[in-house]
Amino acid sequence: MTNTSKRTGLVQDRRTLLTGAATFTLFTPGLTFAASGDLAAVRKAAEAGFDASVKRIQDWIALPSIAAENRDMDKGADYMMALARDAGFQQVEKVPTDGHPGVFATLDVGAKRWMGIYFMYDVKQFDPAEWSSPPLEARIVDKPGFGKVIVGRGAVNQKGPEAAFLAALHALRAAGRKSPVNLVLVCEGEEEIGSPHFHQIVSRPHILAALKRCEGVVIPAGWQSPSNGGVSVNLGAKGIVELELVASGAKWGRGPRTDIHSSEKARVDSPAWRLVQALTTLVTPDGNTPAIDGYFEKVRPLTARERELIGLAAQRMSEADAKRALGVDRWIDDLPWEKALERLASQPTINIEGLVSGYTGPGGKTVLPGRAVAKIDLRLVPNMTMADCVAKLRAHLDKRGFQDIEVNVSGGYDPTETDENSRLIRAELNSYKRLGVETSVYPRLAGSWPGAVFTSAPVGLPAGQFGLGHGSGAHAPNEYYVIESSNPKVEGLVGATMGYVDFLYEIASIR
Amino acid sequence: MTNTSKRTGLVQDRRTLLTGAATFTLFTPGLTFAASGDLAAVRKAAEAGFDASVKRIQDWIALPSIAAENRDMDKGADYMMALARDAGFQQVEKVPTDGHPGVFATLDVGAKRWMGIYFMYDVKQFDPAEWSSPPLEARIVDKPGFGKVIVGRGAVNQKGPEAAFLAALHALRAAGRKSPVNLVLVCEGEEEIGSPHFHQIVSRPHILAALKRCEGVVIPAGWQSPSNGGVSVNLGAKGIVELELVASGAKWGRGPRTDIHSSEKARVDSPAWRLVQALTTLVTPDGNTPAIDGYFEKVRPLTARERELIGLAAQRMSEADAKRALGVDRWIDDLPWEKALERLASQPTINIEGLVSGYTGPGGKTVLPGRAVAKIDLRLVPNMTMADCVAKLRAHLDKRGFQDIEVNVSGGYDPTETDENSRLIRAELNSYKRLGVETSVYPRLAGSWPGAVFTSAPVGLPAGQFGLGHGSGAHAPNEYYVIESSNPKVEGLVGATMGYVDFLYEIASIR
Repeated sequence: MTNTSKRTGLVQDRRTLLTGAATFTLFTPGLTFAASGDLAAVRKAAEAGFDASVKRIQDWIALPSIAAENRDMDKGADYMMALARDAGFQQVEKVPTDGHPGVFATLDVGAKRWMGIYFMYDVKQFDPAEWSSPPLEARIVDKPGFGKVIVGRGAVNQKGPEAAFLAALHALRAAGRKSPVNLVLVCEGEEEIGSPHFHQIVSRPHILAALKRCEGVVIPAGWQSPSNGGVSVNLGAKGIVELELVASGAKWGRGPRTDIHSSEKARVDSPAWRLVQALTTLVTPDGNTPAIDGYFEKVRPLTARERELIGLAAQRMSEADAKRALGVDRWIDDLPWEKALERLASQPTINIEGLVSGYTGPGGKTVLPGRAVAKIDLRLVPNMTMADCVAKLRAHLDKRGFQDIEVNVSGGYDPTETDENSRLIRAELNSYKRLGVETSVYPRLAGSWPGAVFTSAPVGLPAGQFGLGHGSGAHAPNEYYVIESSNPKVEGLVGATMGYVDFLYEIASIR
Repeated sequence: MTNTSKRTGLVQDRRTLLTGAATFTLFTPGLTFAASGDLAAVRKAAEAGFDASVKRIQDWIALPSIAAENRDMDKGADYMMALARDAGFQQVEKVPTDGHPGVFATLDVGAKRWMGIYFMYDVKQFDPAEWSSPPLEARIVDKPGFGKVIVGRGAVNQKGPEAAFLAALHALRAAGRKSPVNLVLVCEGEEEIGSPHFHQIVSRPHILAALKRCEGVVIPAGWQSPSNGGVSVNLGAKGIVELELVASGAKWGRGPRTDIHSSEKARVDSPAWRLVQALTTLVTPDGNTPAIDGYFEKVRPLTARERELIGLAAQRMSEADAKRALGVDRWIDDLPWEKALERLASQPTINIEGLVSGYTGPGGKTVLPGRAVAKIDLRLVPNMTMADCVAKLRAHLDKRGFQDIEVNVSGGYDPTETDENSRLIRAELNSYKRLGVETSVYPRLAGSWPGAVFTSAPVGLPAGQFGLGHGSGAHAPNEYYVIESSNPKVEGLVGATMGYVDFLYEIASIR
């Protein structure tokens, strides 16, 4: 029996999965921690807890905390606290910020090592009309080629993977085992608006002191590739700034303060045209390269090792799959696959997330809008910083006479980088290898997460993602997370849970 | 007793207004038609019909026909037909078009002359949340400084003034009088989307033949100035083209077909940036002058007479009032009042009505939109034509490589001009003068109406607006129309009704 066929047995059918013994053997070869009998017991507990774990995800999805809409934020923090207590964290506290509250919790089992875990309890906005089932109902649906999935807002981003991590703690306790490492949980409710206050949480003296004891910090993830079950170990991520550029008659002193009849355009200036003119100066004519004065000063080119890693990843990943998933026929400048991946990892961007001005409904309406807004995100690469980029944007606009255009930053954080040779990254690679998962080390995620809060001063820790399992549709309709996989290469919820168990043991024992 | 004090009596209080005799004298001096006793009887009938006339407006507002939303269009045409029959039109027919139906009606009293009347039965879109009272309830509200007004969508644009015209026909009949002229009514339901099919209505042979008998065509209006009761007689109006410019991954062959995660910007082109780049080429850097290749070729500069008329209007009108009403501190290029008015009348415009792309809700959302739309209106001056302008826009974009940007025209019409010495304009001036209303002859309305359908081939008639009374808020929340004026310089519904009676007699008798 090969590993693959065993794993087929594991995921194809829940009844098979729950028989336990056959699937347990998947995790036995090469285990580095002492009592492999422990693992069998923990797995049994994870399987027995499957229904409770699914319900834990569903109940959590039913409470959508959305910072952008100030929706259920305090409730969300309370719920997060209850989840932490329920999973065995002994000290759990709500951490106020200038924005929405975070949560800090510790689980001290007297182990030698400490591990940091980052959670977000917030989710992205959603429009129920775009969904195939109500996004808060977290329905279990048969998704052809994937298996049984939970469909709901936050399913994969990030409640499903986070709940899989909590399930690992429940399984350890149910099996009568202690966590192999002590845990520090830091959690925020503003990840989806760019984590504007998360640094306030981690820099509280007692939280900072707890984090500084840790080997590193991971955010639970469920990003196994549906094609080969592979996982990326990312050595960092781009930074992000989210902001609105606002042109208005009120600030400008020209144009109208509110929407007026469009026939007035012949004698009245237009804030919408002003916004367009300002936007045009920010990028090259193809819209692809930032043209803000001095914007590339701090950009560090890819190292030889980073290019090597991208080259290896390019061979493992399917360009056709990527294009299909994105609905894209060609990359910028018709770049070949490896060059497109290099661009993705190495280039800062200025993206228009949204344009809003005047009349936005069906058909037309003859107004001259008093206000025009571009929703923008900037993605930053090392060694750019959020503060420097925002200052350069402001200076660039000012220099061109656009002093009136507001730059309203709603959130963001610096790029993050973690050493390939850190204990955290090596433990991830060891765990994935033992679990039979094809791994690609990737120099930098093009997406962003507030890892810089951990990797930068004052915390200064390795940080990354870890997790088996699969979901997709983050920020989109019909977001899902696989709980029972019909794909032999991808784990379901129990497999993801056991992945965290393995990883914690690996962190406990790695040299 | 001066005219003004009499008119104060007329409008200050409905009870006074309904006493009749004192107010009737306002209209007697200088009447050109024979039986001035007729007028007293008609006025009594108009006053007696006040409640019915108000209800006619309210009931009409309760049925909002909105072409952009395909809302109640056929019902609206049927309702219009019933209103025409009720007012005495003998022949009333629905006129199908490639879009929404129009209405054609005639009232043949065997008079020597025929007059054309243009109605629109559609109204602009509305958002009830923005209104102080439900926009379809047509509530009667005391508006300080104005009097009793009907608040509702379509109140002034154009149901109130149109209903005042119908009230004139009802009053004539109730007083046992025939209309002094025969009438041709042409009506459409697509004015608010740029009258894309109105030419199909007027070019039907029997409708065209009926129109060609007319002295001219007027649309009822209620635009007396609240400051001095003055009215403009407009010798024309700008043309308009409404269109959407659409950039999309689907058409472009670059960028995504749908919204994707914004981190992809580093390797994927952006339709939103493409739209911004294309827009930038359409106007001068200040956003104020069209920069489409060859766009000014057909633009006819103001004549000496037109400049003279604007100069006279500038003296009569208050710049401060205009700026206050618009919420504007300065005109384009800080032009002085008269030059701003010249610019308003003489310059073609390219206006952004709306921008829509990607995420448009509160806060941000990290998407790279697959589609971006600019809602645009072009205002045309003589001798520009809609067809030529759209062709030049297309050629301009194509020449710059923007072949993929869609130009989706939803409606529009050419500019319209009517001879100052036509019988229609002279009759308007005579009526206004007799009614004691300060009149300013204005060369060209910056707004647009489908008058070109009448002034151009094949119809070729003088066309304009006529009406006393006041309302405002067209296309905006809390649109209103005054039914009982507390402003001594402005007429209410009965005064507006009697204005139409006077005008019809004037058309009947003018040399």
